[in-house]
Amino acid sequence: MVMGKNDELESLRHQVSDITAQIIRNVHRRMELAKQIGEIKSSLGIDVKDEKVEQEIRLRVLSLADEIGMGRDFALQLLNVLLEESEQAQVQKRLQKGQRQTHLGIFMKAKQLEASGKRIIHMEIGEPDYPPPARVGESLADSFRLRQYHYTDTRGIPKLRDAIAEKEGVSEDEVVVTPGGRFAVFSAITSLLKAGQELIVIEPAWPAYKQCADFIGARTKVLRTTFANKWTPDLQQLEEMMNPSTKMIVLNYPNNPTGKILDGKRLERIVSVAKDNGLYLLSDEVYADYTLKKFASIHEYGYDKSILVSSFSKRYAMTGFRVGYAVANNDIIAKIASVQAIGITSVAEPMQRAALAAMSEYPSENVRMMKKRLDFVCGKLKEMSLRFVEPEGAMYVYPELPRGEDIELVEKLLEKGVAIAPGSGFGDYYRQFVRISACQPEKILEKGLTIMASVMKEQA
Amino acid sequence: MVMGKNDELESLRHQVSDITAQIIRNVHRRMELAKQIGEIKSSLGIDVKDEKVEQEIRLRVLSLADEIGMGRDFALQLLNVLLEESEQAQVQKRLQKGQRQTHLGIFMKAKQLEASGKRIIHMEIGEPDYPPPARVGESLADSFRLRQYHYTDTRGIPKLRDAIAEKEGVSEDEVVVTPGGRFAVFSAITSLLKAGQELIVIEPAWPAYKQCADFIGARTKVLRTTFANKWTPDLQQLEEMMNPSTKMIVLNYPNNPTGKILDGKRLERIVSVAKDNGLYLLSDEVYADYTLKKFASIHEYGYDKSILVSSFSKRYAMTGFRVGYAVANNDIIAKIASVQAIGITSVAEPMQRAALAAMSEYPSENVRMMKKRLDFVCGKLKEMSLRFVEPEGAMYVYPELPRGEDIELVEKLLEKGVAIAPGSGFGDYYRQFVRISACQPEKILEKGLTIMASVMKEQA
Repeated sequence: MVMGKNDELESLRHQVSDITAQIIRNVHRRMELAKQIGEIKSSLGIDVKDEKVEQEIRLRVLSLADEIGMGRDFALQLLNVLLEESEQAQVQKRLQKGQRQTHLGIFMKAKQLEASGKRIIHMEIGEPDYPPPARVGESLADSFRLRQYHYTDTRGIPKLRDAIAEKEGVSEDEVVVTPGGRFAVFSAITSLLKAGQELIVIEPAWPAYKQCADFIGARTKVLRTTFANKWTPDLQQLEEMMNPSTKMIVLNYPNNPTGKILDGKRLERIVSVAKDNGLYLLSDEVYADYTLKKFASIHEYGYDKSILVSSFSKRYAMTGFRVGYAVANNDIIAKIASVQAIGITSVAEPMQRAALAAMSEYPSENVRMMKKRLDFVCGKLKEMSLRFVEPEGAMYVYPELPRGEDIELVEKLLEKGVAIAPGSGFGDYYRQFVRISACQPEKILEKGLTIMASVMKEQA
Repeated sequence: MVMGKNDELESLRHQVSDITAQIIRNVHRRMELAKQIGEIKSSLGIDVKDEKVEQEIRLRVLSLADEIGMGRDFALQLLNVLLEESEQAQVQKRLQKGQRQTHLGIFMKAKQLEASGKRIIHMEIGEPDYPPPARVGESLADSFRLRQYHYTDTRGIPKLRDAIAEKEGVSEDEVVVTPGGRFAVFSAITSLLKAGQELIVIEPAWPAYKQCADFIGARTKVLRTTFANKWTPDLQQLEEMMNPSTKMIVLNYPNNPTGKILDGKRLERIVSVAKDNGLYLLSDEVYADYTLKKFASIHEYGYDKSILVSSFSKRYAMTGFRVGYAVANNDIIAKIASVQAIGITSVAEPMQRAALAAMSEYPSENVRMMKKRLDFVCGKLKEMSLRFVEPEGAMYVYPELPRGEDIELVEKLLEKGVAIAPGSGFGDYYRQFVRISACQPEKILEKGLTIMASVMKEQA
């Protein structure tokens, strides 16, 4: 009897091995076909990626999965592995594209130049020059005296979570303290999405969203906005992008880099698209304090799959303390916290204490000052006859270049000691733009912009 | 002509769609077969996982890939997707196993109990109770005064990297400063491995290695060590585990949780296995200062695919500052730094300054004190007639329980205000063990161990 079973086992194993080989052969055949398609497309001048065709095949796979009783998630995961590889096959000989040059890349270059003795005017990075509240300094000294430098709860020290919960009008189990808003974004995207699933990013956008998705093999679909439309997303286009793999929409208003604020009606419609499709809605609101018109937080819409991300970096000029947070329902917070437990254990306790100390003040002076600086930058850019959409918030202006590409200007300026961010760091279609950060005193901004004006004149 | 190409495109697309459907059908058929195999195995009482069968099929796929001219990496990736799914299918109805209860999980429970007013003796976590060097406190106050609280180079401030480079005898471009040794481990594993690739962990082990691998869909293969063999890894077994998907071996000596130190000869042989197979060798040496016999760092072997991980947490009792680092060749450091750029931008600057301040001292008193405490714990455990291998380093003792399972004891003790770590948090096969951390003053350790002794007596 046992021998019989062993024979059966042996025979089944052979079948598995044979069918595996057949699958591999078919996948290879599929790649060959994809390559041929790529060649024809290339000769016809058509884009390699074709959303419509992809959508058709996805629907066929889903209905097949239903028919044969296969899990939809696994069928889609498998299809995504095939689609990614066939895209690769189609562009096989395309030159290895370098990674995007981002504002952070320029910042690193600037830091290296500084380390070698060069002076740099920093208009590439969103780092306010003013100091944090004075009590933050006291808190740092206190931390040592009070021995507040231990591992904390992964979600953050209770007092800080309570203070954030009170500010945001939620309960403390809906809050997790992270090392910067960036890690809140990172852990939300990497814990809520799986490889092959999709998130939608409205570009131009902070590059981190796509980078976090890439990191776990999730796919970023881009909803492109344009200068001509004043950076307003086309919501019909958004609806057409939905497919069974779509799992998240990322919002970032006030927007980095454009300063755009979405009106309430549009935000409401986005929330309802998310609801209808059961999507997570990640709203990065780190610039929420720097607003020049009415701004509605995602929280006002009471959507239970929304995640609000905020930070102490911009509000309190505490970039280098690396403290931010996420607010969401407790299930989502548990997932975010699990990434945090794996990656960092907990946020440095003295930094959490400093953030708590900062919260007893509201930095209205910072907000007033940023508005003044933005006005100043806008005025100067107008003098230079540059076109841009007036920012409605955040800390940046995103002007269009009358000629040439962003990287060229950015590199020339860096040579002259002025760092600005290339527009293409926020999306492949924005090589005609640069981002100017208004985080310096007017005198320094003036100096930087004067150098920029003269370099651009030389280019003309 | 153009019409002809369009027709061809259409026909190719149909072929792609048909072959996709065929692949999906075959994969489904494969899953059905796997399920049948699972049922037979279960009736025969055989483990679902069978390394030998897996290895055979892997070799067949590789030779097929070579034959038809398909990339080996992609073929293996595909196979791994199939293998994981078929394991899933085989154990389909197995109860959803809860996540392992780890020392960190117990710590979180203890923290919550403390927040509700209960007093807890912490023998579950590796957090020394003594303070960091005094100049760390001064540095915190200075940071604010000197406005050292900004974004820094992703790899860390130059002075700290220089100091670490000098200590480790490397150049500063071979160093990256991370938020704790944990993030160095996280970013090394997630940047150097891809989904489907494998790393080898020697258990019992700190759970983070497997968690980081799981996070990106890499597979953890376990080399199990036993109490009977004094936690010595069997290197022949290690060699037999090699397959084309193996990419990394993780070492952690002095070991957490056993306190084992590997002798130089064995380490040399592991390095040569790594070399022969082109593997990364991640050596987590955060306990390198707490050694009771000769300890050789991975650095002494000059292997260019090795990554040393260290930290300020244990050496300087600076757990809550969250500063650690990785040392490796510049290519590897660049990969680690790219994860850091995506996840956190840079480590909090005041924490980096604090770490730099600490480095001007060597904490020999901490080392002496830890040795004394370990002796004390060992003595007490002997009085309780518990069996264990005497630790050769680190900060823990890992005794065997004469009866019952770890979780049961851990939970009973937590009720009585004593937190210890379950042995199974370090590997599924260690339910007969618990980890005692010697990070408290002897008086407190005595209190905790007395409670432990009385609870164990009740159980007897």
